[in-house]
Amino acid sequence: MRCKGSVFIDKVNTFAKIIQNILKMSLMVVGSVAFDAIQTPYGQTDKIIGGAGSYICLAASYMAKKQNLVAVVGGDFPAEYVEILKNHGTDTAGLQIKSQEKTFFWSGKYHENMNSRETLITELNVLEHFDPIIPPQYQGTEFLMLGNLSPIVQRQVIERLAVRPRLIVMDTMNFWMDIMMDELKKTIALVDVLTINEEEAQQLSGKRNIVEAAEAVMAMGPSAVIIKKGEHGALLFGKNGQVFATPAMPLRSVFDPTGAGDSFAGGFIGYLASKGETSFETMKKAVIAGSVIASFCVEKFGTERLVNLPQADINDRIEAFIQLSQFGSTL
Amino acid sequence: MRCKGSVFIDKVNTFAKIIQNILKMSLMVVGSVAFDAIQTPYGQTDKIIGGAGSYICLAASYMAKKQNLVAVVGGDFPAEYVEILKNHGTDTAGLQIKSQEKTFFWSGKYHENMNSRETLITELNVLEHFDPIIPPQYQGTEFLMLGNLSPIVQRQVIERLAVRPRLIVMDTMNFWMDIMMDELKKTIALVDVLTINEEEAQQLSGKRNIVEAAEAVMAMGPSAVIIKKGEHGALLFGKNGQVFATPAMPLRSVFDPTGAGDSFAGGFIGYLASKGETSFETMKKAVIAGSVIASFCVEKFGTERLVNLPQADINDRIEAFIQLSQFGSTL
Repeated sequence: MRCKGSVFIDKVNTFAKIIQNILKMSLMVVGSVAFDAIQTPYGQTDKIIGGAGSYICLAASYMAKKQNLVAVVGGDFPAEYVEILKNHGTDTAGLQIKSQEKTFFWSGKYHENMNSRETLITELNVLEHFDPIIPPQYQGTEFLMLGNLSPIVQRQVIERLAVRPRLIVMDTMNFWMDIMMDELKKTIALVDVLTINEEEAQQLSGKRNIVEAAEAVMAMGPSAVIIKKGEHGALLFGKNGQVFATPAMPLRSVFDPTGAGDSFAGGFIGYLASKGETSFETMKKAVIAGSVIASFCVEKFGTERLVNLPQADINDRIEAFIQLSQFGSTL
Repeated sequence: MRCKGSVFIDKVNTFAKIIQNILKMSLMVVGSVAFDAIQTPYGQTDKIIGGAGSYICLAASYMAKKQNLVAVVGGDFPAEYVEILKNHGTDTAGLQIKSQEKTFFWSGKYHENMNSRETLITELNVLEHFDPIIPPQYQGTEFLMLGNLSPIVQRQVIERLAVRPRLIVMDTMNFWMDIMMDELKKTIALVDVLTINEEEAQQLSGKRNIVEAAEAVMAMGPSAVIIKKGEHGALLFGKNGQVFATPAMPLRSVFDPTGAGDSFAGGFIGYLASKGETSFETMKKAVIAGSVIASFCVEKFGTERLVNLPQADINDRIEAFIQLSQFGSTL
């Protein structure tokens, strides 16, 4: 027999655990919310919704219930799309709307093999003087995803957080290496995981060999580096020679690679936030989660596939990834 | 209580099983045994021992105890090297020595990124009129590896076998696609597994997308296709949409890619022969076995690493591959 007090304490403990779970799952995302115009060998789009912040939040929404977004758009940005993000669990309290300005616009063209692209137009607009204001209720976030942005803005976000998040993941690109390598390295020094592609790892580190490049990047600060290889999958390097690799899902049709890297990052950090874990073993599974979401992203133009992705499709793709790459624990 | 007759029958059954095991493990290898001269960004060699047949037999020796080699060399080929092959379990009854002729010689140069190479010299010599004579004791082989050679010679070997092997694996290259596509397709129609690289799969099938290319190749006859992607690993396609992928081991130094594809093939078929199995699930593990052996091959020039490879190193690398790519059966 247990007394009533014991039942009460059980209930308090359960409630406390729920609160803990909500806290541990807190995820903040910083990144552009933008218009894209895309040309691929399969077709082209008018201005559609894009930007790292959009892709990351949508991707993460299939792993973590809530994403606290910090971003900026102009008065031309459609309210319906903000609703779509909200419906995916994105808190838009940190989404600034500059009604007198225009939303960031990028236009690019993919070549025949989809591995290389060319930027046709970049109009920074609202992004030029982006001041990342963090709503008070976002403070105390445990997981922080810094989508590709100026490394100065990325660093401002870290500095404006009263408590350092348990895990900071940062994405960047060669553009910042070309124009502000020193600023970039200062920000990289502050993060836990850096996601870049192979050429960027080489450019950043000055090392041609990918193992040496990853080690050189980790010597700059991060405890893990993810090398995104597109159709060839991804590599995760950790300290003490830890390394994990996944192939990409071989797809019958790749319509538009735009946002694949952001979707990967969103799935990756969304998975970790949902588990509340940051171990290398959990990061392995997070790399798979990111790869799964990215594999959907490229199947349609822009965010189309990510905006409406049935859970059953995700479960099937996870199973397909397991079949694709798992052979057991012995030969 | 069991009677003495029962013990006798047990012994007969055990003996029969041993014989069965020996039979099921029978592996025949056809391929060039050659001299190579190699230039890489790390250095260059004089004439060293090479050829698909050498790499395949050495690689397979770490999986299957015996490899029945069918090949041809000239009088200039060093007897010591034949001894090395014999010491690795290679039966050289099928190695013809044409004392009045010269051994096949290939010279090539790898470029900075090691992904592309240029052929500097090809002297066919004994290979020009190679008549693949199969010693009677090789008949009844269960596993046959057709190393890269003229598809006409590869087909002759199949036709000269009284009983079709349980599994025929064939390697080839773009060279044969350029000069004798029709002959090549006739041979491909007769094999179970074809190993080629990505560009070759596209050239052979006329399909750009790798899934469609693999399906088109399987429509030509093989029930499985392996796409070798070098530093990006390998893809195994089977019937009914089956697909498996492995990353390559990220290596700190890749000295010489020569023979990597042959070593992969040798490890692959050697593993299957040692298990006596040809299911898709076993092929997944065979792809790992091939990847493990290939990862050693590239660490030194030519066959140097494969000639003397401690079992402990292989076990460690298998474990490293498991750590590299296995995350479990759920997310």
